[in-house]
Amino acid sequence: MTALVPPASSAASARLITAADILDRCDELGRHSSLPNGLIKRVYLSPEHAAVNAIAGEWMLAAGLATWQDAAGNQCGRLDGARPGLPALLLGSHLDTVPAAGRYDGSLGVLLAIAVAERVARSGRALPFALEVVAFGDEEGIRFGTTLLGSRALAGTWQNIWWGLEDQNGVSLDAAYRAFGLDPAVIGDAARTPADLIGYLEAHIEQGPVLDDAGIALGVVSSIAGARRFSIVIEGAAAHSGTQWALRRDALAGASEVILAIERIAREANLSGTVGHLAVFPDAVNVIAGRVEFSLDLRGESDAQRDRAWALIEQTAEQICDRRALTVTSVQTHGAPAAHCSPHLRVAVATGIRLAVADDSAPPSLLSMAGHDAMAIAALTDIGMLFVRCRDGVSHHPDESVTEADVALALDAFEAAVLHLADQYDADELDSEFDARAATT
Amino acid sequence: MTALVPPASSAASARLITAADILDRCDELGRHSSLPNGLIKRVYLSPEHAAVNAIAGEWMLAAGLATWQDAAGNQCGRLDGARPGLPALLLGSHLDTVPAAGRYDGSLGVLLAIAVAERVARSGRALPFALEVVAFGDEEGIRFGTTLLGSRALAGTWQNIWWGLEDQNGVSLDAAYRAFGLDPAVIGDAARTPADLIGYLEAHIEQGPVLDDAGIALGVVSSIAGARRFSIVIEGAAAHSGTQWALRRDALAGASEVILAIERIAREANLSGTVGHLAVFPDAVNVIAGRVEFSLDLRGESDAQRDRAWALIEQTAEQICDRRALTVTSVQTHGAPAAHCSPHLRVAVATGIRLAVADDSAPPSLLSMAGHDAMAIAALTDIGMLFVRCRDGVSHHPDESVTEADVALALDAFEAAVLHLADQYDADELDSEFDARAATT
Repeated sequence: MTALVPPASSAASARLITAADILDRCDELGRHSSLPNGLIKRVYLSPEHAAVNAIAGEWMLAAGLATWQDAAGNQCGRLDGARPGLPALLLGSHLDTVPAAGRYDGSLGVLLAIAVAERVARSGRALPFALEVVAFGDEEGIRFGTTLLGSRALAGTWQNIWWGLEDQNGVSLDAAYRAFGLDPAVIGDAARTPADLIGYLEAHIEQGPVLDDAGIALGVVSSIAGARRFSIVIEGAAAHSGTQWALRRDALAGASEVILAIERIAREANLSGTVGHLAVFPDAVNVIAGRVEFSLDLRGESDAQRDRAWALIEQTAEQICDRRALTVTSVQTHGAPAAHCSPHLRVAVATGIRLAVADDSAPPSLLSMAGHDAMAIAALTDIGMLFVRCRDGVSHHPDESVTEADVALALDAFEAAVLHLADQYDADELDSEFDARAATT
Repeated sequence: MTALVPPASSAASARLITAADILDRCDELGRHSSLPNGLIKRVYLSPEHAAVNAIAGEWMLAAGLATWQDAAGNQCGRLDGARPGLPALLLGSHLDTVPAAGRYDGSLGVLLAIAVAERVARSGRALPFALEVVAFGDEEGIRFGTTLLGSRALAGTWQNIWWGLEDQNGVSLDAAYRAFGLDPAVIGDAARTPADLIGYLEAHIEQGPVLDDAGIALGVVSSIAGARRFSIVIEGAAAHSGTQWALRRDALAGASEVILAIERIAREANLSGTVGHLAVFPDAVNVIAGRVEFSLDLRGESDAQRDRAWALIEQTAEQICDRRALTVTSVQTHGAPAAHCSPHLRVAVATGIRLAVADDSAPPSLLSMAGHDAMAIAALTDIGMLFVRCRDGVSHHPDESVTEADVALALDAFEAAVLHLADQYDADELDSEFDARAATT
């Protein structure tokens, strides 16, 4: 693809992006939605996705980055370092959302990354690496049930079996790519290699209450909980609602019992376990449910503990369904191991926070129970994450909220983390190190 | 409205409708559906409803009845008795269906009624009352959540508050009437008066296994269980699926617990209790459910017992939701008292069965757990019902099945019941009795 290059005059012309600008931009992105009444929903390869890619691309250009949309629909921008072709530090997050989403999950990280890149571009400082910003197209996995499609394409872990995934309207991922103007045949072009990159940094709202409870604006992520997702189907027999008890094979009553078992098992194992999607068939007031499909999202810090809990859930669901003359089947729709942030990137993020908040004590270290694009990128390069306080820990909800003051601190900290990393590297050493790595991989 | 009258030549030309014809006609009606792949769904005021009304109207005409569609979209036909204007014995059932329905629930009763009327018309016998056949447009209540709209219009128990009911697409009942070519302002024209009628007889598949288990083709209904339906909403807070347990307000986990409580309470009270519809919001794999809406259909022979069980369900749901920091609200969407079949119509049906099966022992007397148009008509006139065995008691399911032999017996029994009633009446007495009744009401 051909990159767009920023206008030569732009660098000096406008004031730098402020925290208030970033909040305004979050609002502006939030207006691109497939839902009415101000509710936000923006899924992969939708018209809204194309719209926010175009806007983010313009903002990247204005910040001084060369821009392109990659083969997976991720919107990208690049600011070369001391010389063209250096490996890049990748800064990013995602622009897709859940239904009835907030304005900051994903978008805030993209906009902070653009603002950091602009600060570096305007400073005139030649970094020993390139800076790239990426706005991933699919982190939430809402449309096709499989998450991280954008970041997994970039990580080179795309699986061709996904082309057959279908959305709720029966549109395949393959067809959605073509409708979006992308060519499935060249999905490999989106993949980067380890030699292209020195690491990945992502800023994101915490999506939990730890920072808010502690009265602290920013934190460093230690690792991201591994998640497995399942689609579970319970089948009974649809029948008239007046059917006597002995003859009932009620799939919804069975599913209810399984959902409560999931809650108990996950809670006892100190895991997160969520049934967020459920559909009943035929779904009529006077017909016993013959079939129920529901999702399970199971996550925790320990992959082994999570896998043991899943085995127990499977066994318990089978017992419940045997007793009720129902059948249960499940397929895993997503699996990601826990991803650990690299020690040197944790140091960089912590250093950035200390400088930004002017407090030399160690910032909080947080386990992320939420998944992030960084999980996918961990298969490709080192990852680090900066968490920003969100009010009451509320996320995936219109009430998602951050303060301008926290965003200002996050911007300073994110920039300082990048500059701290720049201090650790020398462009010549990077060249030879990455040439050597490329030669051996 | 103007009634269509049968061609004068039709009476003698064709052979009488057989049980095999009735099964073929059930198949033909089943082809008018809003669902693909042979699945049947036909809701009130839909294009499919118009189509089956037209077909049933043709069959009524061919059977020798004058036909019209009433102000509520019920398809009607009338065969005068010994002279024009006599009060009528109404024979009927419904043509609407649940989603993924069988072919016989409702349709079989309409087609048996047409065949009985044809037999009477061809016999040349002048009954002491008119015979009317009515194919009700809404018994199941699928489209607007409120059942028996067709039969309640005829019974004169229509409530104007229903005009604002909306279907899943936000189409109001008022707008649906207009789209169907009906005028809401004249809904009262559909209402009949007690003086118009001497009673109502309905044939229907059992929708239960009693006859099949006993190896018996036909039964007499004693009464129809009273049903109450509720729409229950549980509200929590949508949040990211990684949210820690202490902060979760998971509406689906709460709903699951309530559904299991409903099952336990209804079972212990020997009632039928069914949650057949459930919807989750926002319904995404990685978002805790913030809101769940579900239906409850509660029915039993004793209204008092049913009402006590509902009070206990309400109380239990509140306790569950309090403990989970959820809120629960419910509205009754339908309520019907238990309807008892009139002794003299039970005798007529039983007599018809004994004659048809050539066995003088008393046929089984059955409580109907399923609701029927007869429940609504009970507010207007005496009711009686004939049940036909269906395989394994399966109903509201594509596997619904009846045998040709049983339909042949049902046709004979239904005709014999009508003729038995005719033997009880004298047209002159009917005239004076009903004139007197009309004068005092």
